[in-house]
Amino acid sequence: MKKDFSDQIHYIEDGGVTSAMGYRAAAISADIKGNGKDRLDLALLLSDNKATVASYFTTNLVKAAPVLYDIKILSKPNPKISAIIVNAGNANACTGVDGDNDCINIVSALAKKLKIHQDEVFISSTGVIGSRLPADKIIAKLDPLIEQLDDDTGDMFADAILTTDQFRKEVAVIATYTDSNDELKSFIIGGTTKGAGMIAPSLATMLAFITTDVEIDKTLLDKILKTAIDKSFNSISVDGDMSTNDTVVVLANATCSIKIDESNVDIFTEALERVLTDLALMIVEDAEGGTKLVTLIIKGAKTDQDAKLCASKIANSPLVKTMFTGNDPNWGRLMSSAGASGADFNPNKVDIFFQDSDGENLIHYVKNGLIIDDNLESAVHEIMLKSQYTIILDLNNGEGFTKFYTSDLTVEYIKINADYRS
Amino acid sequence: MKKDFSDQIHYIEDGGVTSAMGYRAAAISADIKGNGKDRLDLALLLSDNKATVASYFTTNLVKAAPVLYDIKILSKPNPKISAIIVNAGNANACTGVDGDNDCINIVSALAKKLKIHQDEVFISSTGVIGSRLPADKIIAKLDPLIEQLDDDTGDMFADAILTTDQFRKEVAVIATYTDSNDELKSFIIGGTTKGAGMIAPSLATMLAFITTDVEIDKTLLDKILKTAIDKSFNSISVDGDMSTNDTVVVLANATCSIKIDESNVDIFTEALERVLTDLALMIVEDAEGGTKLVTLIIKGAKTDQDAKLCASKIANSPLVKTMFTGNDPNWGRLMSSAGASGADFNPNKVDIFFQDSDGENLIHYVKNGLIIDDNLESAVHEIMLKSQYTIILDLNNGEGFTKFYTSDLTVEYIKINADYRS
Repeated sequence: MKKDFSDQIHYIEDGGVTSAMGYRAAAISADIKGNGKDRLDLALLLSDNKATVASYFTTNLVKAAPVLYDIKILSKPNPKISAIIVNAGNANACTGVDGDNDCINIVSALAKKLKIHQDEVFISSTGVIGSRLPADKIIAKLDPLIEQLDDDTGDMFADAILTTDQFRKEVAVIATYTDSNDELKSFIIGGTTKGAGMIAPSLATMLAFITTDVEIDKTLLDKILKTAIDKSFNSISVDGDMSTNDTVVVLANATCSIKIDESNVDIFTEALERVLTDLALMIVEDAEGGTKLVTLIIKGAKTDQDAKLCASKIANSPLVKTMFTGNDPNWGRLMSSAGASGADFNPNKVDIFFQDSDGENLIHYVKNGLIIDDNLESAVHEIMLKSQYTIILDLNNGEGFTKFYTSDLTVEYIKINADYRS
Repeated sequence: MKKDFSDQIHYIEDGGVTSAMGYRAAAISADIKGNGKDRLDLALLLSDNKATVASYFTTNLVKAAPVLYDIKILSKPNPKISAIIVNAGNANACTGVDGDNDCINIVSALAKKLKIHQDEVFISSTGVIGSRLPADKIIAKLDPLIEQLDDDTGDMFADAILTTDQFRKEVAVIATYTDSNDELKSFIIGGTTKGAGMIAPSLATMLAFITTDVEIDKTLLDKILKTAIDKSFNSISVDGDMSTNDTVVVLANATCSIKIDESNVDIFTEALERVLTDLALMIVEDAEGGTKLVTLIIKGAKTDQDAKLCASKIANSPLVKTMFTGNDPNWGRLMSSAGASGADFNPNKVDIFFQDSDGENLIHYVKNGLIIDDNLESAVHEIMLKSQYTIILDLNNGEGFTKFYTSDLTVEYIKINADYRS
């Protein structure tokens, strides 16, 4: 039985990457896109202590220069990170040797100004692929950027990493527990992300930066992060592994005098999963043009992997997504997507339920692969009119389970992405 | 070197399923949808001789009742088909035992009226999933349907099988050759299809019915059909294997006194591939809301399979499709899709070309993973403004090759599919 930490983990109002102790951030307008618009597009995160780092990068064969740079830094023995510099407006992907050199030049200049080793700096980019990054513009803005560093500027950092996003995405939690000496202890995990839900395993860049003030062994942090990403960024219809630039970084700077060990690993894991899931859900909510947040629960699959195959196929089907747009209980599209997913099940044993997102009003709509009563359609339609609801598919073929999040597909999506060089 | 049969294979004006000798067709309005609209939605194809049959059905785990019925007929020894009855407006999928019985009842009634064995009848359906097929309405229309059977009614048959399609899709060719006795011989292959291109491996039903008057061994026909489908229906961004109802049927009724053997198998193969490819391209052209027909050529892949992986990923990417909509030479989306496809290549060796569909005006845009000259952008944009053009990706990693066809993604697509119960 999983422990319930809901009384011990609380949200920090307006929390973000600077909520945990020992972090400062800054953001500035550097006109990276070169369109003269005065918007924040260059951001810096600084940890007062060198931080232990765990990260997760795109599995795309085509990796952007900053991703390749960070992977190289990570491959060094016992990597520690003090600073992350991020730009929006240009992905620095498909830019060849020039792109690699731009990363090196920016990082060197920054490390020199911050008086840290250049192996303590991560760099991230998001934006259009295939254009040279204006490194000079970035380097020219480093001094004013550093000058603005502060410990209550997480919101500016969160704003500066956005691209087609419609709103800032940040969250922080404080976790409190009693240690073996009966002392009350607390630590903070905060983070921010950018990315907007798309209609298929997509190429929209997802960046996420998470900060915590605990001390934690890198191997343990890597392991916890992997599971947390599976439950969050890899359980939304934006698959985080597909763009050239996708990056998730967690820094742990050991500022709060708590070391994560067997005694507190469960609450730390729960808090990290909470932060990542909240950030991932904000991406779905911000689906380009989307208006719905639909939770898909697949249960009774042969394996957890089958459940995920099935959920991912349904969540990414344009026919299912347009059925959400039209509030149409066209359950045949759910059956057909499940059948095309590769998951193993007997179509004549599938049950489908619709439910309000608050867990009320459960409607058993399909039993053994057949609609129970045509008259239930209007009740299901009522649920689908809401902006958030849950669909449960029980494959009745085992114990496999997954929870997945998706959005609808609207005319707005097309308009956003058909814009010349969006 | 592949033989060129272009002088020997010619289109038959207004040709279709009744162009080959010994076939008759009919269509009627049966109000299958029950909305009172007077549109053709029930069609019958009859071969005067029992025909050898080859077919290809959906690989979806959830198979419609008529698909399961036909598969059962095919599993009997030496199957021969004389009639195919097809309805639009209802897929008879996810309908349980009732759906199975509806198939049996329709086929029995039809076989009795036609005085043929019921194992000589195929049945196909397309339309909404999860509603009971109105079998009584269909059976009540069998007499007038049979009465209308004629050998110049292929167009009515083609009209009656459509759903969201915007236009009728049919084609027929006559192939002429000189046999070993210096006698001029000719045979005909005709066909019709329905289905509309979607934005991802999709669930839109694709039905195709092909007729020829040659005699051919079933094993040989099966083999030729498999290759022809790979080059046609499985090379468009509508993957034909995903809906609950997808069906391709070829009938060969031995009416023209030509037997396909080693001496004429090449021209028969070429003619069948021509018919299937033309029909598949009509599906892409009729993409729901689409306005472009883009040919993707992937060359230099490690294997043909890698080429197909890469082509399919690009062809189905909503970000690539919206780039077509916006006429935007945003080649980074092509690179990123290729990189996410699973195909093996070195991003720094990729070349990308754009070309007019008539083979003129080849522009080398990307070399070794980098744009050659930003000034070429306007020329590429000019090509993309056209309704048909070709993109060539050379992965420079081997001899693997494929040709794939796709369309753009427009606001119309969303409107069509978000309509309540489209």
